[in-house]
Amino acid sequence: MIKSEEQFIDFISNNFNKIKNIPDSWIGIGDDAASIDLSNKNVIFCSDAMVEDVHFRSSHGYESVGWKSIVSNQSDLAGMGAFASAFTISLGINSDFSEKDISLLYKGMNDACESYGGYLVGGDVVNSEKIFISISAIGELYKKNSLLLRNKANVGDVIAVTGEIGEAGAGFFALEKELSNYKKQKESFLKPKPRIHESKNAIKNGIICGMDLSDGLQKDLSRISNSSKVSIEIDLDSIPFDKELNKLYKKDLFEKLISSGEDYQLILIGDMESIKKMSIKNEITIIGKVVNNNTSELIFMSSKKNIKIKSKGFDHFGK
Amino acid sequence: MIKSEEQFIDFISNNFNKIKNIPDSWIGIGDDAASIDLSNKNVIFCSDAMVEDVHFRSSHGYESVGWKSIVSNQSDLAGMGAFASAFTISLGINSDFSEKDISLLYKGMNDACESYGGYLVGGDVVNSEKIFISISAIGELYKKNSLLLRNKANVGDVIAVTGEIGEAGAGFFALEKELSNYKKQKESFLKPKPRIHESKNAIKNGIICGMDLSDGLQKDLSRISNSSKVSIEIDLDSIPFDKELNKLYKKDLFEKLISSGEDYQLILIGDMESIKKMSIKNEITIIGKVVNNNTSELIFMSSKKNIKIKSKGFDHFGK
Repeated sequence: MIKSEEQFIDFISNNFNKIKNIPDSWIGIGDDAASIDLSNKNVIFCSDAMVEDVHFRSSHGYESVGWKSIVSNQSDLAGMGAFASAFTISLGINSDFSEKDISLLYKGMNDACESYGGYLVGGDVVNSEKIFISISAIGELYKKNSLLLRNKANVGDVIAVTGEIGEAGAGFFALEKELSNYKKQKESFLKPKPRIHESKNAIKNGIICGMDLSDGLQKDLSRISNSSKVSIEIDLDSIPFDKELNKLYKKDLFEKLISSGEDYQLILIGDMESIKKMSIKNEITIIGKVVNNNTSELIFMSSKKNIKIKSKGFDHFGK
Repeated sequence: MIKSEEQFIDFISNNFNKIKNIPDSWIGIGDDAASIDLSNKNVIFCSDAMVEDVHFRSSHGYESVGWKSIVSNQSDLAGMGAFASAFTISLGINSDFSEKDISLLYKGMNDACESYGGYLVGGDVVNSEKIFISISAIGELYKKNSLLLRNKANVGDVIAVTGEIGEAGAGFFALEKELSNYKKQKESFLKPKPRIHESKNAIKNGIICGMDLSDGLQKDLSRISNSSKVSIEIDLDSIPFDKELNKLYKKDLFEKLISSGEDYQLILIGDMESIKKMSIKNEITIIGKVVNNNTSELIFMSSKKNIKIKSKGFDHFGK
């Protein structure tokens, strides 16, 4: 039985490799703070919080919740051209949160670290009616001073994305409607994969503009458009998606494609030559271009249909 | 009116110096993560969460809540022999949380950074019924590889504390009982000061064992005793406290002194010579010694009275 914070720390320290077996020169869980030796490197530092019934349901299973809480930070780091070094976890739990829940949650977090890097080095557990998980991450760059930023889009650049768009949103939709199919989409929602490899490749190919796609294309592309002070034109017909989504959404498809979040893909922007080096390996799909630096508009166009869509991206203030 | 996360970021970016004016080589709020240039230094990384009605009441004022949320992390860093470089803030707020509340909260955080170091470089805002604030910090060491750790207490060492003990707890007690006096104690609770200067001095004097006093002497000394595998003997009559506390607590005084939390003082442990160097400057008071490394007992003694106290420290699992 876990009755105290000490027992909690003992429990997680003894049971999870990525807490127990940190590098020799580091200090992890069990003191006031963690010490991370990253001699002579930029440190990339971010955080992300998830709240019960806002970002997840307990019915999704805490292993998925733990996994996603880490992956969302690994994805933020990938969106910077960095990889995870260490995480701290602040956990708000109530008396209904069982030892099994803790175990599943940390299994999910540990597994995500095993798969995509980083160690769990500290945190805090507090009492909270609604469960929340707030994770912070620090990461390193692949190459000193080489980052993927939002304010580096230039007129003439092309816009590309990794993977298929709308998968996680479709999975969430299928789960909420209790549909029996759409296994791949549900997996994308419950166990998303951050694009570590593609981030590294982007840096290697000299790409300097990009971000992770967590709040939907419309919302996230607007961020790049505003931050770089350019307009962006997207060809709706080029957005890569699984044909299953046609069945799921019918006439709402394009609206869903540009608004659904949590895909954890990457948006990468650069000159055609750099972007093409990556698309040869089928890692990315070109979906649009940067067209004007006098305005900050985001235009969705279709050569096949005359569509203009004004759906909103995911915003926690609006939920 | 703040209606979106973007407006929220704009608002805090434009209004607070410690967000706006970060060093030139850094990247702060507005991208996926923050980039902190700490070339060739150990990075110290910690986090702390506070939940409404568990750690604070909205009636305490959000300026105090913001201040304390940063100070608790600055104090954790001081307890490691480090000073703050950067913070990320994950905020859970509901629709009742006004623009004025946000402003007060960030004023408190900004002021704490101005007073005791660090920049606010990122974070996340999510929807939550109960307000919560989860802050992560990274810090640097004053001296490479010189830290204050919990597992370095040796038999023969003396135990010292900075400042006066029980002040914050007394302030909270006075606030809860709506007592009109005890202004100094209320200030200690609402606007505690992390012991940055004393932490630096401890490192300078070669002290390697210590922690910040956040959960009360009994709880925190037990952590050192367990971590160092030694027994600790505390002379109750030596614990420094403001005589006002006699009036406030009457017969419960000693129990309160060893159990009340949030003082954000430092516990420092070392040989008499090193500790005395600091106590000459009136920075610390010796309250006990390390007596045995076969057991991990914590003994509170009084030469004047025959007291044995078994109160519990602050534990969020127990709340």
